[in-house]
This record gives sequence, structure tokens and C-alpha cells, in this order.
Amino acid sequence: MGSAPNTMAVSTGRLESFSDGVMAVAITLLVLDLRVPAPGSHHSLASGLGSEWPHYAAYVVSFATIGIIWINHHAAVLRLREADPTILLANLLLLMTVVALPFATSLMASYVNRSQGEHLAAGVYAGSLLLMSAAFTVFNWQTLIRRPHLLRGELTPDRRRAILRRAVSGLVPYAVAAALAPLSAYATLGICAAVAVFYALPASRPE
Amino acid sequence: MGSAPNTMAVSTGRLESFSDGVMAVAITLLVLDLRVPAPGSHHSLASGLGSEWPHYAAYVVSFATIGIIWINHHAAVLRLREADPTILLANLLLLMTVVALPFATSLMASYVNRSQGEHLAAGVYAGSLLLMSAAFTVFNWQTLIRRPHLLRGELTPDRRRAILRRAVSGLVPYAVAAALAPLSAYATLGICAAVAVFYALPASRPE
Amino acid sequence: MGSAPNTMAVSTGRLESFSDGVMAVAITLLVLDLRVPAPGSHHSLASGLGSEWPHYAAYVVSFATIGIIWINHHAAVLRLREADPTILLANLLLLMTVVALPFATSLMASYVNRSQGEHLAAGVYAGSLLLMSAAFTVFNWQTLIRRPHLLRGELTPDRRRAILRRAVSGLVPYAVAAALAPLSAYATLGICAAVAVFYALPASRPE
Amino acid sequence: MGSAPNTMAVSTGRLESFSDGVMAVAITLLVLDLRVPAPGSHHSLASGLGSEWPHYAAYVVSFATIGIIWINHHAAVLRLREADPTILLANLLLLMTVVALPFATSLMASYVNRSQGEHLAAGVYAGSLLLMSAAFTVFNWQTLIRRPHLLRGELTPDRRRAILRRAVSGLVPYAVAAALAPLSAYATLGICAAVAVFYALPASRPE
Repeated sequence: MGSAPNTMAVSTGRLESFSDGVMAVAITLLVLDLRVPAPGSHHSLASGLGSEWPHYAAYVVSFATIGIIWINHHAAVLRLREADPTILLANLLLLMTVVALPFATSLMASYVNRSQGEHLAAGVYAGSLLLMSAAFTVFNWQTLIRRPHLLRGELTPDRRRAILRRAVSGLVPYAVAAALAPLSAYATLGICAAVAVFYALPASRPE
Repeated sequence: MGSAPNTMAVSTGRLESFSDGVMAVAITLLVLDLRVPAPGSHHSLASGLGSEWPHYAAYVVSFATIGIIWINHHAAVLRLREADPTILLANLLLLMTVVALPFATSLMASYVNRSQGEHLAAGVYAGSLLLMSAAFTVFNWQTLIRRPHLLRGELTPDRRRAILRRAVSGLVPYAVAAALAPLSAYATLGICAAVAVFYALPASRPE
Repeated sequence: MGSAPNTMAVSTGRLESFSDGVMAVAITLLVLDLRVPAPGSHHSLASGLGSEWPHYAAYVVSFATIGIIWINHHAAVLRLREADPTILLANLLLLMTVVALPFATSLMASYVNRSQGEHLAAGVYAGSLLLMSAAFTVFNWQTLIRRPHLLRGELTPDRRRAILRRAVSGLVPYAVAAALAPLSAYATLGICAAVAVFYALPASRPE
Repeated sequence: MGSAPNTMAVSTGRLESFSDGVMAVAITLLVLDLRVPAPGSHHSLASGLGSEWPHYAAYVVSFATIGIIWINHHAAVLRLREADPTILLANLLLLMTVVALPFATSLMASYVNRSQGEHLAAGVYAGSLLLMSAAFTVFNWQTLIRRPHLLRGELTPDRRRAILRRAVSGLVPYAVAAALAPLSAYATLGICAAVAVFYALPASRPE
């Protein structure tokens, strides 16, 4: 096919622009779960806001998580010279899991300190993050291992496998978090929050 | 006019950027139809979430459908060297049908397993997808057949007609799905879901 | 200052990208006013959807209106070589009026066929469109008349004044529509719809 | 590391595109706080809209504030040659505070003319703006002082310190506004509005 233009070879520019748009909207919709207590209720505003604390905590954790997946997605797309239809589909699958996060976040925040449903809600939340990580692993596998000819070509096979291994290892904490959900919703959420902190911190040091 | 800049000849860059933005928001607003069961109700959270299954199914089908129309739109705009006002309007018409999908999706999901309104809701859903496909066909007809001078010039007339025929043939399943709505809402929805799967799969093989 | 980089001389690229983002979100939020009738009510779904017709009409008119202002804004920014802080502010003012349209649209659609409030709602709607046109006129005046040195330089003074006159003349129908609101809400809305059709049609002919 | 491509050196293009997307969505979501009075209530539409005035005032102040932070962020990113992971994180932190503004705005507007909760709501609003300014100061400190090698290199140390000082001084009015919240909610809001006007006005004069 040489270097001739090919409508199926997709520039990564618009893949980035669409993905950035979707992630930007998804991360911003998290604010819709921060609700204003109805004025005129019997409780004071302070207690009304106070009882909403799981929503604030969930906002921070999910915002950081989507932000970090955006940074990682950004790095993954930078490695690509061009995309093809399978990559577009793997990307769509990843976006489908990211867009569902505001729902999973709201579900978890609404139930975590209830006496009923808190384990299921925490499990759905950790499961959603696990799905998102799995979709990102598929994206990395499709690009790094299955389509090395679409990469910018500066990556050795060893380096490519190392990046994939790192994506796979990202599945572990979310699997553990989901497995712990029937025991303790707080343990589940603590792990999800710790993952966000863990990925944020090393990122601040040059590799 | 030669190659002189002309304010009515519109670069496709901003057409893409606006369309990507609109489609990114529309696809993300689908999450607003995933609702958190009210805590403290008599039902368990599991049954509350379970009874919402049509909304999860609809989320997946509509997300895939908008994602596929984005991929096709992307390919269609790639073929253009530049746009003109008619193309901008045809594009707006397409976007108007895409933006309405979160409403049609929510309507269908809310009624599909009810004993009243399910046929109408399924018909509106299939009709919305039919409208979107028709608007995309108009967009393709305006660009491929009416304005070949705005194309990048690598497409033979045969190839252009073939692309248009493929767009027209995309209307058929949605027309069948809409026609079946008075008989069975599930048949209608099954067809819409099958179309998404069908278009997703071939896309993963190089043409 | 010569041609030296200057942090206050702003490339139009990001002005476009932010404006496109805001207008893309605003146009898409119009779908939130299309509401699904609550299942299980006494009325049939058909009558429930039928009574919502002002919302569908308003969706189409406002979508077309924002789409046309986007096309015009696009052309206006294309004329600019670079922006400066005043232009950014004039642009923000325009965006502030565009973003308010989903509210004005919902207000008008909710009241137009009521026996109370319909005149005020129509007036607010026409007034919002008038404000948007006025903000666009200010944007054009600031760029075309006050800052000709920031234009791409292919426009004669006559041509620049002609573009401004056309923007000013766009104010007239909305002013008439607002003035008619106390008499007839339908007349007001008919004018707003006619403006959208009028601007859409000539755009399909090359200038 | 020389000038060799490095996956951790991030082009500022996509940082801009994601930030523009998030800020565009956040600024547009402000419209969701403009609510349509329910038709058929005992009050006239005029009094219904009139009693919502704090929401309109808050819309204008918060829209202008996000718009101005966008302009400042734009200028800050223009100074960067490239980004690194710490800058991406500082940017995410800034975005997290911007995205929370529609919530803080709605809270403030819902309570400012109530007899209960108005001081707390005003304090939360001013506190949110203070947080946003602090995050922007951190962003500027990380780029201007800690990573001068990532700047475009035309800024003297004096100029860089001057820009940072200006960012720090932006904290003062919001700190005062937050401190005054227990005394008068209106004073708090007046200061927040005045800051928006103050930053908008000088921007219209060339530096």
C-alpha cells in the first residue's frame, strides 16, 4: 500500500480530538452528582452538605481516575503513527467504559454509607474501573502487540511488552477491590482511591 | 477565483472539530439515562438495578451506533478537500439527528418492557436511527455526487457511487425495524442492535 | 512590536477550539428539554408525546439558530489573523448569550401553548436571540471596524462595512419578534423560525 | 535527553485541547442552574422568573470568572514549549476546581437570599474560587519557577516572577470574600463579581 493515502488509515489527530472531547465531557459530568440541598428543609445547610460527603470524596477519586486514564491514553496515542478501524473500535470500547463512570460514581456515593446496597454499589464501582482498565489493556494490546507497524517505530519489542505488562498490572488492584466489595464497601473504595494516588504520584517524577 | 482564499470555502478542520464536539457530547449524555435507584426504597438495590436493564442495553446499542456514525462521518470528511455552506448545512442536519438520540434512547428504554406505549417508543427509536441514516446519506450525496470538485480527487465516479450505495443500503435495516415496531418492540430493538454489531465487525477487517 | 511573539496576541486556533466546544455543548444540551413522558400515567404515550410538540419545534428552531450562528462565527474568525484580549472578551460575551439559549428555549416551549405566561416566555426567547445577535454585532464591529490590523488584510473597507451592516440587519427581525410578544406568542416564534430558515437557505447558494 | 522524542515530554497541543474541552463543558453546564418555573403554579411567570434573580446574577459572574480563567490559562500554556507529568497533574488539579464551580454557583444562588444557610453558601462559593485561584497559582509556580527549561525561553526571571506575583495577588480578593462570608453573603458575592469585572476590564487595554 506504500505511502499512498488510504481512507482506512486514520490519522490519530481526530481520534485524539474525539477521545479528548468524550473524556472532557465525562469528567465534567461528575459535577452533576454534587447536589445542592433543598432550601427550606428542616436541617441546616451545614448538616445537609455534611451528609453529602461521599459525593465529594467520590468526585475527587473519579475525577483523578479519569484524569489519569486521559494522561495514559494520551501517551498511548502518541506512540501511534496512525490508526485503523480495529483501533477505533478498541478506543470506542474504552470510551464506553469511561462514560459510564459518572453513573457508577453516583451509585457508589449514594449507597456507601447506607445499611442496604452498599456492597453491591461498591462492587459495581470497582467493577466499572476494572472494565475500564481491561478496555485500556485491550487498546494497548491491539496497538503494541498486534499492530507494531502502526507505531512510530522507536519502541523495541521489550519496551512494548513492558508497557503492556504495566497496563495488565493495573487490573490487579481493581480486581482486588471488586473482590472485597462483599466484605467492606469502605475497603473497596479505599483501594480505588489509593490507586488514583499511586498513579498520580510516580507520574510527577521523570521516568 | 483560482486558489485565492475565499471566505465561503470552509476548511474541513473546524467542521471536524465542531462535529466531533457535538458527537462527543451527545454520546456522553447517554450516561444521564443510567439512573441510580433512590436509596431507602422498599426494593433491594439489586432488584432496583435489575429492573433498569433496558437502560443498560440501550446505552450500549446507542453508544455503539453513535460511535459508528462518528467513524463513518470521519471517513466522509477525510474525503473532502474543503467544505461549502451546503455541506455545513447537511452536516448540521446530521448533527441534529445525532443529538436527538439520547432522547430517543431514553424513551425506548423507558417503555420497551411496558404493556403500554412500547410499540410507539420502539418506532420512535428506529425512526430516529432511520432519520440519522437518511441525513448521513444526504451528506454523502451532497459531497460525493453533487460536489465532486470538493473531493480530494482520488475517487473514481464508480467508487463514489459505491460509497453512496453503501450509505443508502444502511437505511434498509432501520426502515425494516421501524416497520416491525407495531408488531414487536423487541424485534425492532434486536435489529437496531444487530446493525451496530454488523457495522462494528466488518470495520475490524481491512477493506 | 514588529513580528515578535507577544503573549497578548492570541492565535485564533484556541479561540476557535474553545468557542467550538462551548457551542457544541450548548447545542447538544438542547436535547435535555426533550422529556420522556413518565411511564404508567393515565394518558397514552402518543398523547404524552403529542402534548410535548412545542419542545420538538423549539428544539429544531434553536438547533438551527445555534448552528447558523456557529457558521457565521466560523466565517468571522476565519477573517482574523490573530486575536487580542478585547476580542476574547467580545467572544466570551457572545458565548454567554449562546449558552443561555437552552434555558430560553425550554422556557418558551414550556409556556407557548399555556394561557398564562406565554407572552413573557416568547418575549424572553426573542429577547435572548436579540441579545445573541447584538453580541455578534459587537464582535464584528470590534474586529472589522476597530481592529482592521488584525484582519487577514484581504477585505476592503467597503466589504468590511457591508459585513457589519449585514450583522446589524440581523437584529431587526428579532427586535420585531420581541415587540410582537405581548400580542401573540405564536407570531414571535414564527418570526424566530423564519429567521432560521431564511439564513439557512441563502447559505446554500454560493455568494 | 537532547531533542530526541520522549513519551514523557508532552506536546502542549493536547493539554490545551483537553483543558479547553473541560472548561467549555463546565462553563456551559452553568445554564443547567437556570430553571424554568413549573407551568400551572399559582404565581405568575413574571414573579417566578423574578424570584430566580440570584441564579441569573450567579450565571453571569461565574461565566465571566471561568471565561477569565480560560483566557489566563490560555496565556499560561502559550508560554510553555512542552509539558511533563507534573504539569499535567497541576493542570488536572486546576480543572478539578473549575469543574466544581457549577455546583458552588448553584449552591450560592439557591441560598444567598434565604434566612438560613446564606453565609455558608457564600463561603463555599468564595472558597471554591479561592481554591481555583490557588490551583492556578500552583500551575504557574510549577511552570514558571520550577520548570523554566520547559518555557519558550523568551521570559526573563524578573518577568516570570512578576507573572507569578500577579497570580498570587489574585488570591487576595477571594480570601477576603471568604472571610467576609460569616458577616454578609452579599458582600462576599459583590467582591466575587467585582473581581470578574476588574480582570475583564484591564484585559481590554493592551499591556
